[in-house]
Amino acid sequence: MRDLTKMMHPKSVAIIGASPKPDSVGNELVKRAVEARFNGQIFAINPKYTEIEGVPCYPSVVNVPSPIDVAIIATPAPTVLDVIKECASVKISNVVIISSGFKETGAEGQALEQAIADFANANGINVIGPNCLGILNNAPDVRFDGCFAPIQAVSGNIGFATQSGALASGIINLLPTLKIGLAQMVSLGNQCQINALDIMEMWEQDDKIKQILMYIESIPDPVKFREVASRVSRKKPILIIKSGRSARGAKASVSHTGSLAGDDTTAMGLFASSGVIRELYLRDLFNTAQVFSKCDLPKGDKLAIVTNAGGPGIMATDTANDYSIPLADLTDKTKEKLRAVLPPQASVANPVDVIASATAEQYEQATSILLDTKEVDILLVIYLYIAGKNDIKISKALEALKKKHPNKPIVSVFMTTPEFDSDVVKEIPDFDIPTFRFVVDAVHGIARLVERKNYLDKKPQPAPNLRVNRERASEILASARAQGIKQLTTMQSLQIFDAYGLPLPKFGIAQTLKDARDIASQISYPVVLKLSSKTVTHKSDIGGVITNIKSDEELAFWWNRLVDRLNKANLVETLDGIVVMQQVSGANRELVAGVVKKNGVHQIMFGLGGIFVEALKEVTFRPCPLTQQDAVDMLNATKAKNIMGFVRGGMATDPKIAEETLLRLSQLVTDFPEISEIDANPLMIDDKGRLLVVDARIVTE
Amino acid sequence: MRDLTKMMHPKSVAIIGASPKPDSVGNELVKRAVEARFNGQIFAINPKYTEIEGVPCYPSVVNVPSPIDVAIIATPAPTVLDVIKECASVKISNVVIISSGFKETGAEGQALEQAIADFANANGINVIGPNCLGILNNAPDVRFDGCFAPIQAVSGNIGFATQSGALASGIINLLPTLKIGLAQMVSLGNQCQINALDIMEMWEQDDKIKQILMYIESIPDPVKFREVASRVSRKKPILIIKSGRSARGAKASVSHTGSLAGDDTTAMGLFASSGVIRELYLRDLFNTAQVFSKCDLPKGDKLAIVTNAGGPGIMATDTANDYSIPLADLTDKTKEKLRAVLPPQASVANPVDVIASATAEQYEQATSILLDTKEVDILLVIYLYIAGKNDIKISKALEALKKKHPNKPIVSVFMTTPEFDSDVVKEIPDFDIPTFRFVVDAVHGIARLVERKNYLDKKPQPAPNLRVNRERASEILASARAQGIKQLTTMQSLQIFDAYGLPLPKFGIAQTLKDARDIASQISYPVVLKLSSKTVTHKSDIGGVITNIKSDEELAFWWNRLVDRLNKANLVETLDGIVVMQQVSGANRELVAGVVKKNGVHQIMFGLGGIFVEALKEVTFRPCPLTQQDAVDMLNATKAKNIMGFVRGGMATDPKIAEETLLRLSQLVTDFPEISEIDANPLMIDDKGRLLVVDARIVTE
Repeated sequence: MRDLTKMMHPKSVAIIGASPKPDSVGNELVKRAVEARFNGQIFAINPKYTEIEGVPCYPSVVNVPSPIDVAIIATPAPTVLDVIKECASVKISNVVIISSGFKETGAEGQALEQAIADFANANGINVIGPNCLGILNNAPDVRFDGCFAPIQAVSGNIGFATQSGALASGIINLLPTLKIGLAQMVSLGNQCQINALDIMEMWEQDDKIKQILMYIESIPDPVKFREVASRVSRKKPILIIKSGRSARGAKASVSHTGSLAGDDTTAMGLFASSGVIRELYLRDLFNTAQVFSKCDLPKGDKLAIVTNAGGPGIMATDTANDYSIPLADLTDKTKEKLRAVLPPQASVANPVDVIASATAEQYEQATSILLDTKEVDILLVIYLYIAGKNDIKISKALEALKKKHPNKPIVSVFMTTPEFDSDVVKEIPDFDIPTFRFVVDAVHGIARLVERKNYLDKKPQPAPNLRVNRERASEILASARAQGIKQLTTMQSLQIFDAYGLPLPKFGIAQTLKDARDIASQISYPVVLKLSSKTVTHKSDIGGVITNIKSDEELAFWWNRLVDRLNKANLVETLDGIVVMQQVSGANRELVAGVVKKNGVHQIMFGLGGIFVEALKEVTFRPCPLTQQDAVDMLNATKAKNIMGFVRGGMATDPKIAEETLLRLSQLVTDFPEISEIDANPLMIDDKGRLLVVDARIVTE
Repeated sequence: MRDLTKMMHPKSVAIIGASPKPDSVGNELVKRAVEARFNGQIFAINPKYTEIEGVPCYPSVVNVPSPIDVAIIATPAPTVLDVIKECASVKISNVVIISSGFKETGAEGQALEQAIADFANANGINVIGPNCLGILNNAPDVRFDGCFAPIQAVSGNIGFATQSGALASGIINLLPTLKIGLAQMVSLGNQCQINALDIMEMWEQDDKIKQILMYIESIPDPVKFREVASRVSRKKPILIIKSGRSARGAKASVSHTGSLAGDDTTAMGLFASSGVIRELYLRDLFNTAQVFSKCDLPKGDKLAIVTNAGGPGIMATDTANDYSIPLADLTDKTKEKLRAVLPPQASVANPVDVIASATAEQYEQATSILLDTKEVDILLVIYLYIAGKNDIKISKALEALKKKHPNKPIVSVFMTTPEFDSDVVKEIPDFDIPTFRFVVDAVHGIARLVERKNYLDKKPQPAPNLRVNRERASEILASARAQGIKQLTTMQSLQIFDAYGLPLPKFGIAQTLKDARDIASQISYPVVLKLSSKTVTHKSDIGGVITNIKSDEELAFWWNRLVDRLNKANLVETLDGIVVMQQVSGANRELVAGVVKKNGVHQIMFGLGGIFVEALKEVTFRPCPLTQQDAVDMLNATKAKNIMGFVRGGMATDPKIAEETLLRLSQLVTDFPEISEIDANPLMIDDKGRLLVVDARIVTE
């Protein structure tokens, strides 16, 4: 792991390209550093001046009389490499390149950027940027503002890293309104060397960072991302916006799985399997961040609502239901206690309606009773200013109650006059209850708390090692390779599935009609015939699949017919046999499973099958190797779960078999990374609940 | 229509139960009325005082020397009826009952409320409430604040009616932050007489009301609601939150349709068919309201994005895609114009990235160019304060551009310092561009503009009158009635479907094996046999459906077997025949259609069928009678549309046939309102794209 301690905790900083010109980047950088009351020395670097904004100015870093921990470079792009060489000459080992004009401008800029990275790597220099807003650390013993956002960032417990520097600036402007603050911020820029994962690992170790927020546009190294994020997310929440979600069209592919694996679906799977909370919108990101900033995790998911108005109580109930958060069932004892303190017209069921005339004391009492009960894990307190302004009194009461019940998150909604926010700042400086204007934003944050609690409740596990016949699969793959076959025949694919223990109907391979009869008599009629050809991709397109063959006579008839078709299509040469497979009867539900390799990572797919695969797109992806928990999550991630249970005309399927099917596919591609695509499609569930892989396709690189 | 002109535009108001006691309702009411600078006379009514808050006070309305247009009553519940009688004695014909303690408290309160309503109705008195916050009208020539919200409501062009009085108070507090204002507000309370629909009709006629916002918890009269809302929504937007959405469990029902028709699904259908924009969350309601307050409808749906930062541009593209808003393809000519005014590093594709260093002038020029082009219908302008604060300059430029392009909505996102809002109020008092902090809120509002434009583009039509054999259906229903059958037999149901022209496979009714053979030979094998019994509901549960019968021999075999089963189950008496129906071959897609009567209104259902009906719940409802447009909307409302087009192994079905199927079902229940439930399930699409109703069930009241 890269040591970025000095980068984020410098004792001395040089701002190269500092300027006295108002509104220039070089001026803003100096101003911010000064305003932050940096706990160290600031040096401006500009050959034209001896002082800028009260800071001593030198022609070059080589003229600075003392050591420099971090150089912030804001000179024109073509000068930057030379500047860094000067930095190296005086042993500066951390640089932040603000300057733009690199990779983002084309090939020439990219070459320049590469040269910088090469030099830095060769000389042990850490580089953030180029093309970034800078970095900051609000820790009281550091107070390092090395970015050119227009104002100082509110201090808090969040680490925020962003691939868009402008966004950092925008967010810093909004922080007072968002009721959150930053511990550290890193504008990643073009990430010529230090990237989002380095920052994630740095913040993993920093106790002052309670949660990590990231805005990213790409995931450069999915394998490392999963490794790092899975580890870090067990210690602190990681909230990510990954933009560029819109469909860009999946690459041409012969498999269903391949055609469904858009960039974003696989990113979703990566986040899910890494314990990352992915938000789609900035609004939601910051709502969630406010809740994580101020609340510990609940012990359970039961929500109680306190309100002084019926309508918002009903809306909160609706919204909790939308987010699948169960409302606590209050016991009679709790209701009695509430009745004892509340006005007679109050409703003591959940939502608890203390009614409009309730005093701050009654709010406090009701809240306290609910926090004391076992049946409540989380509290949503809604206050509307109606008769008598109690917003600050209630806030004070909540703050006091929170200290007594740190493990029961309290989230609040205040629909009061706009002065509330500034009143709180004035009257309760250490106010630590998330407050929102609208119920939906509060409930969104609560839902994320519950999601994270549920995630952490699940123990992390390695990918299981299931018993398979690896040698057999290896032989088949070798034989295909020897024949120059990349897309394996149906026979080969089925044999590999069989070797890996996938749930297949009984089958055999016939070269002659006699073989076919023998196999059929062993597995008993009805059977299906499937052409296994070295070139025909979609068997059914040439009528290569015949179902429901009930007797030797029918078998003979169709066998000859198939051979005829092959002759007519001049395909008989490519045949490597005909598969005789048990007909799956009573199959009334179709699922789909598969694998596709994207950006070097195998992605397992699972979801609704049949014509619904493409019509409904109820499929989910997770990166390999799959853990047991990944497999469980995949079964529950789509509406496929609704047809795996009991349905009219069909019994529930055993989820263990379905989980294992996914785990075996994962093990197969982990063992043989040369496999690029797999379809286990369809994956049928019959009326007895048996899960069976009815067809197989494997493609290698 | 009720005349509420004087209610909302009074020249004199009496506040009965006025009080000098701070924070009391009776005091707040007087204060608000005074603060609003009411353009008329205010009289306080309280026997104990002669003056309250500077307002003359009288013992009773009978002592007031001049006529009173509106009486606002805030005396204890038991006194209210007498107070209203006094009002009647001095010809007061509009009263607002603030007092609580009525229907919401139980039977006694309900009786009191009913007595008030009866008296008012008999004496031509308009009543708002009881149990409400009051009413207000911000029109400059009226300035009537008759509610006890803690502050004056910001003035604007919205009519807001709410079933939760507290919510009105909460919202009035938030208005400055929400950047919207109210023209009128009505707190509906218990709606003992005047209800939400009366208010909707009143605001229909009022040009000062540009849009109608409502919070409701119930729809008392769905038939009238649809009539009124359909008419009013053609004139101005109606935005509604209906709370109490959470599933309360649909009533027990024998039909699929019935079991899927939850209260909220049918409310959704009612809103959709009435042109009402339904919001689920207050946040979204007010975001949409801000856009409707300040924007006219666009001519098309093509969005252009202007931003000074790449990241937010990408997120806006993602979000527009989430909301199905297409991004405008800029022509080369437009791009050239943009290039001529923007910095060389700017991106002139859509999103147009003017880059961080862009000046306010460059923003203005880019925006102006985009507003001038034909390819852009709507503009989203995103500004992040990065280098140089241009928020107010850009706002001014946008305001000026808006006046030149009133038909091209401009929506803005300003990620700048919190002072922005107050700066705008100071520097651009008539600023009329919706502004948001987050892209998603802006895009939500834009999506609603587009939705409304699309709705208004569709001409309203009456329900069509299709050719059907009404007499035949009437005979069958009469015969069932005569036999005491409420749930029609399969035969009867199919015959009624046939009479109403639903797309059925060929079929006939057999009483004997010979009949069956004759029918089978006419429609040709394979055929299906279906038991038609007067008591057996789910035919397949007793094996009463035999499919794929291919020959006379098989027919005889299965006929005898069916008769056997009936004998064994002692059901032979209940038989009214066996249906012989053409086997639908190549049917690879299952839809479902049906009808259920809820709260007196027939609801047509349509969606995905088969085991997916309950597993996926991809179904939609609309109230009868269905218009052609309703039918078209229903086909597009769920993912069912994805399997109606071309799929692998199946041709597209003709949407006209599907539309007609829904319209014919609607006509059937409109002609015979005694029908309470219908299932046309499954509704199969075969590989050739033919749509066929394969089974029928009709239940009467």
